[in-house]
Amino acid sequence: MAFLLDDLQFFFSPKSVVIIGASDNAYKPGFLCIESIKKSGFKGKFYLVSPKKDFINGIPAFSSVTEISKDIDLAIIVVPAKNVPRVIKECGEKNIKGAIIISSGFKELGDDFGSRLEQQISKLASIYGLKVIGPNALGILNPYHPINATFVPHLNMIKKGGLAIVSQSGGMGVHLSHLAILEDIGISKLVSLGNQLNIGFEDILNFLEKDHATKAVGLYIEGINNPRLFLENAGRINLKKPIIIFKAAKNKKMNSSALSHTGAMAGDYKIYSAAFRQFGIIEAYSLIDVIDIAKGLMMQPPAQGNRLAILTAQAGGGIVMADSWLNAGLPLAKFSSHTIDEVSKIIMFSNLNNPLDISWSISDSHKL
Amino acid sequence: MAFLLDDLQFFFSPKSVVIIGASDNAYKPGFLCIESIKKSGFKGKFYLVSPKKDFINGIPAFSSVTEISKDIDLAIIVVPAKNVPRVIKECGEKNIKGAIIISSGFKELGDDFGSRLEQQISKLASIYGLKVIGPNALGILNPYHPINATFVPHLNMIKKGGLAIVSQSGGMGVHLSHLAILEDIGISKLVSLGNQLNIGFEDILNFLEKDHATKAVGLYIEGINNPRLFLENAGRINLKKPIIIFKAAKNKKMNSSALSHTGAMAGDYKIYSAAFRQFGIIEAYSLIDVIDIAKGLMMQPPAQGNRLAILTAQAGGGIVMADSWLNAGLPLAKFSSHTIDEVSKIIMFSNLNNPLDISWSISDSHKL
Repeated sequence: MAFLLDDLQFFFSPKSVVIIGASDNAYKPGFLCIESIKKSGFKGKFYLVSPKKDFINGIPAFSSVTEISKDIDLAIIVVPAKNVPRVIKECGEKNIKGAIIISSGFKELGDDFGSRLEQQISKLASIYGLKVIGPNALGILNPYHPINATFVPHLNMIKKGGLAIVSQSGGMGVHLSHLAILEDIGISKLVSLGNQLNIGFEDILNFLEKDHATKAVGLYIEGINNPRLFLENAGRINLKKPIIIFKAAKNKKMNSSALSHTGAMAGDYKIYSAAFRQFGIIEAYSLIDVIDIAKGLMMQPPAQGNRLAILTAQAGGGIVMADSWLNAGLPLAKFSSHTIDEVSKIIMFSNLNNPLDISWSISDSHKL
Repeated sequence: MAFLLDDLQFFFSPKSVVIIGASDNAYKPGFLCIESIKKSGFKGKFYLVSPKKDFINGIPAFSSVTEISKDIDLAIIVVPAKNVPRVIKECGEKNIKGAIIISSGFKELGDDFGSRLEQQISKLASIYGLKVIGPNALGILNPYHPINATFVPHLNMIKKGGLAIVSQSGGMGVHLSHLAILEDIGISKLVSLGNQLNIGFEDILNFLEKDHATKAVGLYIEGINNPRLFLENAGRINLKKPIIIFKAAKNKKMNSSALSHTGAMAGDYKIYSAAFRQFGIIEAYSLIDVIDIAKGLMMQPPAQGNRLAILTAQAGGGIVMADSWLNAGLPLAKFSSHTIDEVSKIIMFSNLNNPLDISWSISDSHKL
């Protein structure tokens, strides 16, 4: 299903946006999307479409996107699933470049109705050459444009930085964003792909390769549509921008649940994991590790070797760090006699081993 | 080396305490220990011993513990290592019941001098029947007495609760305490054992078995002096109070580092890990997991079975949870037709699978 996309810039830096399915009910995504975009500092034009209301919170609403005379780059779609095919057709007729379908109720339901609906929108998107993020997606956020095209207004608190977060699941995208905020890391782009109708991880990676703001990429993946293309792209981009992956749905029994979430088969985890390693992609084993590893890698140049020297003010932490390093099959550095001579001038220990616990020397010496 | 101790109450609820090696230098442990105990709300008597000063911060100081006429339960020793044997001898002559040796410079140095010193104090402690926590220990904290017999005054912010933290390393004991504070868990006791001269994990577990405040036990272990006795005690106590262990120094190459930290050989991790499982002791793979697992277990009664039902407002989190459960070899619950009938009255989904993502139903229904 996936195809190469030279440029997805209209998703991340649109000049004009329409929210289709706008609402004045504060609990509905059709309301929250308006809040998100208004509070993001978006400098372009944005339009609202609602079949029911002429005004929403004081902003005029059109009854259909086809009634809008001006060009539109991006549509954010939050209408009920059964209305999405009609809306996609209208977006196509209007020559809109990209659509974010936030609506759920498609392949992820795991029933015939949802799958048929998704096939319909896939066919229509293909006819009109419409690029789609979703359906069943959180949307995208770009603090550099700026635009928050999600239904989570408080994500506007994200600061600019070098980490691109790409999450299949919207909720996990929000969770990764929260962790980045807690760790004081800035974000270059946030994308949740949902069911990956015609834009998958492989396409977003291509886009991020050329995105100057992006220094590292953190991914939450359940399944990949085109694993071969994904690995080719990821393996290439990883040489310039480290890619850190959390792979969910590792257990074989999870295929049915992952299927019923975003409609992608999870595949055999062992094959994924081996492929990640082969292509030099970093696999994280928790979401906080995705953020921690990205933070560490963005703070320093690539390591010249694989030997680690550990300096702590407390022995236990040094042991735990050294232990993790050795368990990953990597060697600890051996201090040269020159290093030992120099260090022994400021630390009064008989043994200068790695890991080196400088302990109370911190308070005893002003030389440190 | 380890022996059974019926009662270590004088460590945790002493009526009188002496700090030997008290100092007025704010960067020295001999100063920080005074701060800790003063600010802990300790209701008993405490004395200071300093060979150099008659008064420390306005409190009179004795030149030796033998000069104090009143009975003393507990000595906190912070003198330089080479003076510890003499001080231990004086504590023995004074019939003090227990000593916490915070001073380092013993077996953990990995040299002859430190090992010989430790043998000396071991012999003296044995002659006088003196119970020793340490050397090279952080000390103990009991918010119920209250007493903070460590050199970390800010640990007084720990609140009362059900978790006992027992850490070989002082620094990791502090770290576990910080994590408990962040997770808003109360502590029943904090102990750092250091080099385990004549009190080891096996003895502290025996004490905690009878301690009413303790509901769960979290351990940071590098090595155990008497593994057989430890497992017997832990396996028995675990039936009443869950024991969660983080085992450091897992890698065989770490034995030398663990040795040079608290002087205990780390042993073969695989044997430890298999034994923990056999005795029903929970092994955590990070320090935050120790705290999270303890928190979860203290919040609910023991599970009746091993099947898990997962209810989330967002599919990704449900998948990650279910995945972890299945990867641990445990089954997910299958919803009965009765459950499905009842749930379908409040949630409008065609498929009610486990994990169940209730998604926008949260906002759509007030029945939830």
